[in-house]
Amino acid sequence: MSLIVTGSIGIDTIETPDGTKADSVLGGSSIYFAAAASYFGDVRLVGAVGEDFPEEFINTFKHFDVDTTGLEVRKGSKTFRWHGKYMENMNDRETISVDLNVLAEALPPVPEIYKDSEYVFLANTHPAGQMALLDNFPKTKLVVADTMDLWINTEKETLMALLAKIDGLVLNDSEAELLTGESNVIIAADKILEMGPKFVVVKKGAHGAYLRHADGFCAIPAFPAKTVNDPTGAGDSFAGGMMGYLTAADDISFATLRKAIAYGTVVASFNIEDFSLGRMETLKRDELDSRYESFCGMLRI
Amino acid sequence: MSLIVTGSIGIDTIETPDGTKADSVLGGSSIYFAAAASYFGDVRLVGAVGEDFPEEFINTFKHFDVDTTGLEVRKGSKTFRWHGKYMENMNDRETISVDLNVLAEALPPVPEIYKDSEYVFLANTHPAGQMALLDNFPKTKLVVADTMDLWINTEKETLMALLAKIDGLVLNDSEAELLTGESNVIIAADKILEMGPKFVVVKKGAHGAYLRHADGFCAIPAFPAKTVNDPTGAGDSFAGGMMGYLTAADDISFATLRKAIAYGTVVASFNIEDFSLGRMETLKRDELDSRYESFCGMLRI
Repeated sequence: MSLIVTGSIGIDTIETPDGTKADSVLGGSSIYFAAAASYFGDVRLVGAVGEDFPEEFINTFKHFDVDTTGLEVRKGSKTFRWHGKYMENMNDRETISVDLNVLAEALPPVPEIYKDSEYVFLANTHPAGQMALLDNFPKTKLVVADTMDLWINTEKETLMALLAKIDGLVLNDSEAELLTGESNVIIAADKILEMGPKFVVVKKGAHGAYLRHADGFCAIPAFPAKTVNDPTGAGDSFAGGMMGYLTAADDISFATLRKAIAYGTVVASFNIEDFSLGRMETLKRDELDSRYESFCGMLRI
Repeated sequence: MSLIVTGSIGIDTIETPDGTKADSVLGGSSIYFAAAASYFGDVRLVGAVGEDFPEEFINTFKHFDVDTTGLEVRKGSKTFRWHGKYMENMNDRETISVDLNVLAEALPPVPEIYKDSEYVFLANTHPAGQMALLDNFPKTKLVVADTMDLWINTEKETLMALLAKIDGLVLNDSEAELLTGESNVIIAADKILEMGPKFVVVKKGAHGAYLRHADGFCAIPAFPAKTVNDPTGAGDSFAGGMMGYLTAADDISFATLRKAIAYGTVVASFNIEDFSLGRMETLKRDELDSRYESFCGMLRI
């Protein structure tokens, strides 16, 4: 099976309420996704960075054995940068500065050898860009997209066209409410299914996730985490764990999706233990499996 | 086994965002608790109301077969009244008016025949009152209390003395944070265990509940509910279902507590479907068991 992710690659500066600051660390939706998905099999990456992209970050891709054929280092461009600060609750955050840089330019080309990809994750970007990228993959078995409030507010029509073309959508609870006008997550998820996707996963951060699938529904809590040092990328690593598991299983049934969101939950619980990919770089598959078993055991009532 | 609840009995007026208003309906923490617990066995009630307490509300007690030997109709007093309005999210609410009335007077006496009660739930009231009531029960197997932000803010010392005497505490996530100064619910629950109780249940409304027990921990989601017409009493019916199940099982092990909070979750999901005890009055035990099985099945990943 072949899993591909298209999304942002960035240089992040992250501040947390205890005064810690991680300066210019590796970030971006596709990076967190790819690292998480790599525990289940090969991951192909499509994304662009600028000339300023640090050499050592490439070593991180190598560590996770991510296929970087689709990584474009664009001459004359700068890498996407984000500087954010978390509030006391470690859930809400404010953006101190954001420089789109290469993300505001043309999409990176999709290498020919990637075009047979069957499992596709379109990480959050302009929905027109997501659609253009999707056109490169004629043999898909599963296409899942993420989105954000910005596109729901400014590009609703394009987003609705995208929703008609994809199999699954992953988004936050506040985004689900914004998209549907419905504050009850359970009803909002039903309404999203009417927009096209066969399933939707509503992420609720520390409160878990809700899966609505054509064949059923499933709410799960987050893994009870005491160590939360940096929530950045939690949603992306959740999606990476989920898609990685689905790709390895080569199955998108409701039963497999439930296992996939449980794996996504557990990967995310490791990701938030350290800044950037700090914890993921030391995480072993058997630790992941062991926490997955604990998590499922906790839920067996 | 014998389960007793001491707490408020009130006349509520409830407004919801769609413009619905339930005027002067039966309410109060011990009422929601007793109705929920009644599905598992007998429930004894200790509480006081005023002369204005409507006769038809007594019929509701009879419907749930609640033992009202401990119900005092106090001459010259008025029943506790609360008028609240829910916000658009059906979670936050504002109190429009509150009249303590009989709740501000002397505690109701505990009937002699109640003093052999083994399972005791001290619904939310002044912690000194909770301690005074507790002194009436020398044969307890399990004492669980609820509390609220008011007492954490104004009666912390008395509350801490109560915590040293009880087995379990039930409270909201915001109250857990207020009590411990810790915004991470998982850590806050650990800290509460250090204050005395053998277990704590942190209620998170639509986001489920977290159980921390000396022998383990368990996070569960809420039952995915599309019909939320009145969240009043959700926490009390949760506690009632939990305590009712524990009393019937006559066991307070971690394994049984997990089943108990799942039953509490499911009872609460019915309670919120209608105003006051509207839905509870039509609820049958087999409906409850059937939704419990669905809930546990959903969590078997």
